[in-house]
Amino acid sequence: MAKSITPRAEDYSRWYTDLVVEGRLADYSPVKGCMVIRPHGYAVWEKMQRVLDRMFKETGHRNAYFPLFIPKSFLAKEAEHVEGFAKECAIVTHSRLMAVEVDGRRTLVPDPQSALEEELIVRPTSETIIYAMFAKWVQSYRDLPLLINQWANVVRWEMRTRLFLRTTEFLWQEGHTAHATAAEAEEETRRMLDVYATFAQEYMAIPVVQGIKTEREKFAGAQHTYCIEALMQDNRALQAGTSHNLGQNFARAFDLKFQNESGEWEHAWNTSWGFSTRMVGALVMTHGDDGGLVLPPRLAPIQVAIVPIWRGDDPRERIVAAARDVQRRLVAAGHEVELDDRDGVTPGAKYHEWELLGVPLRIELGPKDLAGGAVMCVKRTNRAKRSVPLAELEPQVRALLDEIQREMFEAALARRAAATLAVESYDELKARIDSPGGFLLAHWCGNAACEGRVQEETKATIRCLAFDQPDERGRCIVCGEASGKRAHFAKAY
Amino acid sequence: MAKSITPRAEDYSRWYTDLVVEGRLADYSPVKGCMVIRPHGYAVWEKMQRVLDRMFKETGHRNAYFPLFIPKSFLAKEAEHVEGFAKECAIVTHSRLMAVEVDGRRTLVPDPQSALEEELIVRPTSETIIYAMFAKWVQSYRDLPLLINQWANVVRWEMRTRLFLRTTEFLWQEGHTAHATAAEAEEETRRMLDVYATFAQEYMAIPVVQGIKTEREKFAGAQHTYCIEALMQDNRALQAGTSHNLGQNFARAFDLKFQNESGEWEHAWNTSWGFSTRMVGALVMTHGDDGGLVLPPRLAPIQVAIVPIWRGDDPRERIVAAARDVQRRLVAAGHEVELDDRDGVTPGAKYHEWELLGVPLRIELGPKDLAGGAVMCVKRTNRAKRSVPLAELEPQVRALLDEIQREMFEAALARRAAATLAVESYDELKARIDSPGGFLLAHWCGNAACEGRVQEETKATIRCLAFDQPDERGRCIVCGEASGKRAHFAKAY
Repeated sequence: MAKSITPRAEDYSRWYTDLVVEGRLADYSPVKGCMVIRPHGYAVWEKMQRVLDRMFKETGHRNAYFPLFIPKSFLAKEAEHVEGFAKECAIVTHSRLMAVEVDGRRTLVPDPQSALEEELIVRPTSETIIYAMFAKWVQSYRDLPLLINQWANVVRWEMRTRLFLRTTEFLWQEGHTAHATAAEAEEETRRMLDVYATFAQEYMAIPVVQGIKTEREKFAGAQHTYCIEALMQDNRALQAGTSHNLGQNFARAFDLKFQNESGEWEHAWNTSWGFSTRMVGALVMTHGDDGGLVLPPRLAPIQVAIVPIWRGDDPRERIVAAARDVQRRLVAAGHEVELDDRDGVTPGAKYHEWELLGVPLRIELGPKDLAGGAVMCVKRTNRAKRSVPLAELEPQVRALLDEIQREMFEAALARRAAATLAVESYDELKARIDSPGGFLLAHWCGNAACEGRVQEETKATIRCLAFDQPDERGRCIVCGEASGKRAHFAKAY
Repeated sequence: MAKSITPRAEDYSRWYTDLVVEGRLADYSPVKGCMVIRPHGYAVWEKMQRVLDRMFKETGHRNAYFPLFIPKSFLAKEAEHVEGFAKECAIVTHSRLMAVEVDGRRTLVPDPQSALEEELIVRPTSETIIYAMFAKWVQSYRDLPLLINQWANVVRWEMRTRLFLRTTEFLWQEGHTAHATAAEAEEETRRMLDVYATFAQEYMAIPVVQGIKTEREKFAGAQHTYCIEALMQDNRALQAGTSHNLGQNFARAFDLKFQNESGEWEHAWNTSWGFSTRMVGALVMTHGDDGGLVLPPRLAPIQVAIVPIWRGDDPRERIVAAARDVQRRLVAAGHEVELDDRDGVTPGAKYHEWELLGVPLRIELGPKDLAGGAVMCVKRTNRAKRSVPLAELEPQVRALLDEIQREMFEAALARRAAATLAVESYDELKARIDSPGGFLLAHWCGNAACEGRVQEETKATIRCLAFDQPDERGRCIVCGEASGKRAHFAKAY
């Protein structure tokens, strides 16, 4: 039996962990900082992958696969890059275990004879190895643009981990492209940010702010980084995807050059962009409630759960047969449908379980419904019930799922709007940043020192300089210097 | 410009490498023993994944994801298992790089302060970590069977590597299941072997021998191992997939227990089974020819390449428009179709390139074809041409692709039949094993010593004891003891 979920009001952080674990998305593993993604969670990730992969292919990208290991010297070639990753990486130093006796007990130790000439780093990201290969493949402007994506696992040594949100190993995709001109690279960087924003809003039902990161917050090695930022229910921000214009930094480090139409050699222009399993955590935190997960219909592995209701033995067969027919019809209409005809579990317990797992729509089917030629549909979001005539089953279920998807986005958007506020002074920011939190729009002079001071004193960071933030004259809340635009400050995951 | 392919007759091994590299399936990477899977190769793997994944789901399995790292102590828990993998594993010992000055130059070394308390092994396979998790999830017979699959990368430190066939890192799927009875586990082990055999034969067009491995050749930690074995064009065998009945070995090592219906605690019964990117190599070696790759239509990323042929400028537009129409129709019919309308490349050069890439069907479309209301279809396998009236385009292309798929399998089957021979003595085996090679069916007493002697003296191994090998009284070709069945001996990749 599942233990009960800690209410959000009591402990938001425990509520989140309860949802992930009791909702069977993931579990802790015996490997420090690493989690296990359970079938229900992996099925959500697979749905996310399928949609994103299609979007990447539609924008001309092809998948490939590059080595897990990065030679230490490769990581070191781009100065900012290595600075960003050297302190949190898994280092492979040996290739063989040998048995030795320690205090009379047989134990395995790395065989000193197998020490590697050069240590290998488990990829924290793959810019270095990928651009080294691009340098081999690209000779002419005719070889450009080169548009590659990789689905892979990466490792960043994390001290404080949280299921999905921050784990030592995580799954992601990383796009890597090479272009003949700076303009094309910039266009690509923005195009992929758009893909992420579209995916987040239309599939995950998570409204996002699109913008550019400050110098301090950009990717290690990038010229500039764009991002989409979401706001969770506890009014903390979560970075939901990043797209980096790498300029020629990596092309120079890895000698990635091409001959242009005039026959001259130039360095290529690169972009990279990534989206990870972290976003499963965002899904949980954005939509979940005290009853469990709430998954958007477009990403839910199970969209409809049918619970037949019977009393005694006689009607069971008839009810279950009718439920099976409903299932068959909905599967034929393209939905993923579970029929819960378990014996020995009460309908109430079944409702509870499917709610916990976040199934968007429940269909109850009892003798009375059947007699009336209808089924009872219950929305996961607000438990609203609607009797649907069997004759209109497919279009009504389709409409209900669309409605749930839309309402989930609208609810998240309303929450974000309520938690987005302009603040006019540093004191005001300090007064609000912990509670109620949210996006605090404040003037900032552009100086990293002011940004750093806010972070040190309040733990808030500039999440981004939003594209759609209007120009507005003001004074930096920290130093009072001129500012032309407000930044999005927030405490973030 | 691609360099030319080494003919098989000249150097089979170089021919293979040429096909992989020039056919753009994969490339060498700067990381020792690791390769890069290029988009064309990855697209083949994606098609293989899609089909296998569907077959796994149809047989009740669900995907999940487990950590990349395995604590050293976990690997050590099953004695045979660690014996099999300890000598070829990547060992993570540190989590941070630090800069030091060596001979006045700044260099990065593992920070001794970051030495791990317990070393982590990059998974060579995941039995240990997965069954440790199963032990947490399984309490009752009601939790069984537990049927899980994982798509992942694994690492086995290899000294002598070959693209796809033997690389330090490779991609695969590994199925892991737990059952309440020995009989169910055995049934599952055989079921998944059947899935592999069906996939190999029906999709890869590779005939396989199904059988059981000898004790000496079984998986480290298994009770017994089943396998499918294929024969390459050079008459060497290649293990194409394995399915292991693990008995209760891992359940005991990881305390994986359940309460049976009588309330007693029992250890569960496990199976595991795997299929890897190695099989892309098998595809190359089974079907390729001196002109390049030959991909079976059911796994080819591009099934049809259309080459419009024009002379001068005037008809180009008309021809390309007609070619585009052919493409549109074939895409609508469910095929993957490339239209090669590049300027400045001769039709001959285009033919050469699509042949190199293994595209099963080429469609040539010139003014004469167009005038006759037809296109010319050319089969990759034997370059046979067939004029197809535009009115019958879809059904004829479908039929041609089916025909190619069938003929590829039949050709491979005939080759294997010609290279499978019963030998009556050890001398005869020795005389044939290097040339012409192939499967040599010989009596064997079941003794590991005889098997070992053959391997030492000839490098041949017993690939399997085939299920469909008839009972037959005979004498072991090594020791002369009684034998009830012939074994499949071969030199293998």
